Amino acid sequence: MNSNFEKGRISLKTAADLIRRKDNILILSHRNPDGDTLGSAFALCYSLLKLGKKVRVDCSDGFPERYGFLYEGYKPPAPFEPEFVIAVDTADTVLLGQKFAVFADKTDLCIDHHLSNTFYAENTLLEDCAAAAEIIYALIQELQIPIDALTAACVYTGISTDTGCFKFSNTSPNSHVIAAEMMKLGAPVRIINYLMFEKKSKGRFAVERTVYSTVEFFFDGRCSLVHIPLELIASAGTNSYEIEGIAAVPRQIEGVEIAFTLFERSDGSYRVSVRSSDDFDSSGIAKAFGGGGHFAAAGCTVAGNFEEVRSRLLAETGKLFAK
Amino acid sequence: MNSNFEKGRISLKTAADLIRRKDNILILSHRNPDGDTLGSAFALCYSLLKLGKKVRVDCSDGFPERYGFLYEGYKPPAPFEPEFVIAVDTADTVLLGQKFAVFADKTDLCIDHHLSNTFYAENTLLEDCAAAAEIIYALIQELQIPIDALTAACVYTGISTDTGCFKFSNTSPNSHVIAAEMMKLGAPVRIINYLMFEKKSKGRFAVERTVYSTVEFFFDGRCSLVHIPLELIASAGTNSYEIEGIAAVPRQIEGVEIAFTLFERSDGSYRVSVRSSDDFDSSGIAKAFGGGGHFAAAGCTVAGNFEEVRSRLLAETGKLFAK
Repeated sequence: MNSNFEKGRISLKTAADLIRRKDNILILSHRNPDGDTLGSAFALCYSLLKLGKKVRVDCSDGFPERYGFLYEGYKPPAPFEPEFVIAVDTADTVLLGQKFAVFADKTDLCIDHHLSNTFYAENTLLEDCAAAAEIIYALIQELQIPIDALTAACVYTGISTDTGCFKFSNTSPNSHVIAAEMMKLGAPVRIINYLMFEKKSKGRFAVERTVYSTVEFFFDGRCSLVHIPLELIASAGTNSYEIEGIAAVPRQIEGVEIAFTLFERSDGSYRVSVRSSDDFDSSGIAKAFGGGGHFAAAGCTVAGNFEEVRSRLLAETGKLFAK
Repeated sequence: MNSNFEKGRISLKTAADLIRRKDNILILSHRNPDGDTLGSAFALCYSLLKLGKKVRVDCSDGFPERYGFLYEGYKPPAPFEPEFVIAVDTADTVLLGQKFAVFADKTDLCIDHHLSNTFYAENTLLEDCAAAAEIIYALIQELQIPIDALTAACVYTGISTDTGCFKFSNTSPNSHVIAAEMMKLGAPVRIINYLMFEKKSKGRFAVERTVYSTVEFFFDGRCSLVHIPLELIASAGTNSYEIEGIAAVPRQIEGVEIAFTLFERSDGSYRVSVRSSDDFDSSGIAKAFGGGGHFAAAGCTVAGNFEEVRSRLLAETGKLFAK
């Protein structure tokens, strides 16, 4: 537990009161922006504009084209000195990104759903829920601002992307209830679902093809291992959505209990994602190589060429299966 | 429109009244059972058992192991002469399957969500919604029967599988609202989502691997074509979930407007699934080969070896792109 424990943690009502009194608002998304941080930022922006406020959304890494439907009609106002800075879905100052690192100790309000939040902001509205967009929805309700179809699209996108389209274990009844509301308010979910969950970019397709073509099985199919070469990562981008979630795939195959995905690095090492069933601790394996993480998902970096890294990982796995 | 148009179509209330008066009930799922027909059948069964009725669920093709969590605690009663036969999610008598064809003109009540329903039953409760399980839920509510966690799991499975986990365009606000209710009532959605949408059987994995390894692109990436060889289909089963939905994959790749999936048949022909973007009519292509279907999804059977079938399909595609 850090020393900032719950410093400045405020209620929904207090957050709404704070926002009501402020103008010239800058809303920041986290770096490597995803559907939740962008959906949350723009839903809040469109809502505050309805109150006649001057509002701007920004992100260290810009807005990816993939989420164009959230912002293509958005016209940012002329540059202004922000009076109130809100960071959404941003658990730590490092996630503000280089461009906005300057706001690390100048964030007036952080709206977040990560329990790992470091309470770096003056005020923090934190709820343990599936998506920051769920909190934004509650806030808009609290502020009694009507929700139009575009705002509904933003909220829906935040919730649906952070829950893997209502599939991940973070999905709550409330996630579904809000989704139903957003559909009723005109969120074009058919298009959103197509863009977010069906359409595969050529880069993503290439990565998935590599997973299928390189996967190897060991220990009677209880362990799977995938090799993603450097050139593929370089063309897709390391933190891109092309790579996102790919480590889950080799673990999904029937019978697999421990899965490794090896991402080649340019320095002669591999970044290794470990995934495991309920019976094996991924973080234990990762720790053996100086890494860490959670029970079901962990990671480490292992030096060596592919054959060396693979045999070291398999040796560790063999010990676990032998127990 | 067939001559039976809406013959015996009844309201939810009438259906509930009918069921209340009957005992010794046989509930039939459609052949090649899926999550909706089984979820609906067992949700209704578990609910009617609570009214003290004798109830049995059956299916021409038995109950696939994949859906074991819906029925593993179910103990069918000793054989009895059914007084009242209910078919769920079964639009046409042919879908009753060979074993239960005898009930083609003896179905007392059909509960269905397909607008193509032929009104073969004495009474039909038909609603235009995402899943038969949504109607079953409304019926259980109408009958004022409390819903336990297992029944909630059945309803949730019906809705989530027929909507591709809330991703397909048939998903309605009501689909989400019921899902939220089922979660609150204890449906173990984490396990259900894993089993239905994450876990890949070895057969499914083999089919997907083939899609990725055989896909070819034509016309500057506007057309994709996949070849599923006979031995793979034979080991997976033609109508199995291993094959289900696979034709959607080559169409999902960025830039693809027309996608063909060629399933080899033992008689020297190919069953061809056609998928297209909003700009091209799949059924037009299928019709050119004596097939048919919808705008976005159609099918036909084309005689010839792979190279012959492929070149005939591409010739037809070229005509469309040239327009």
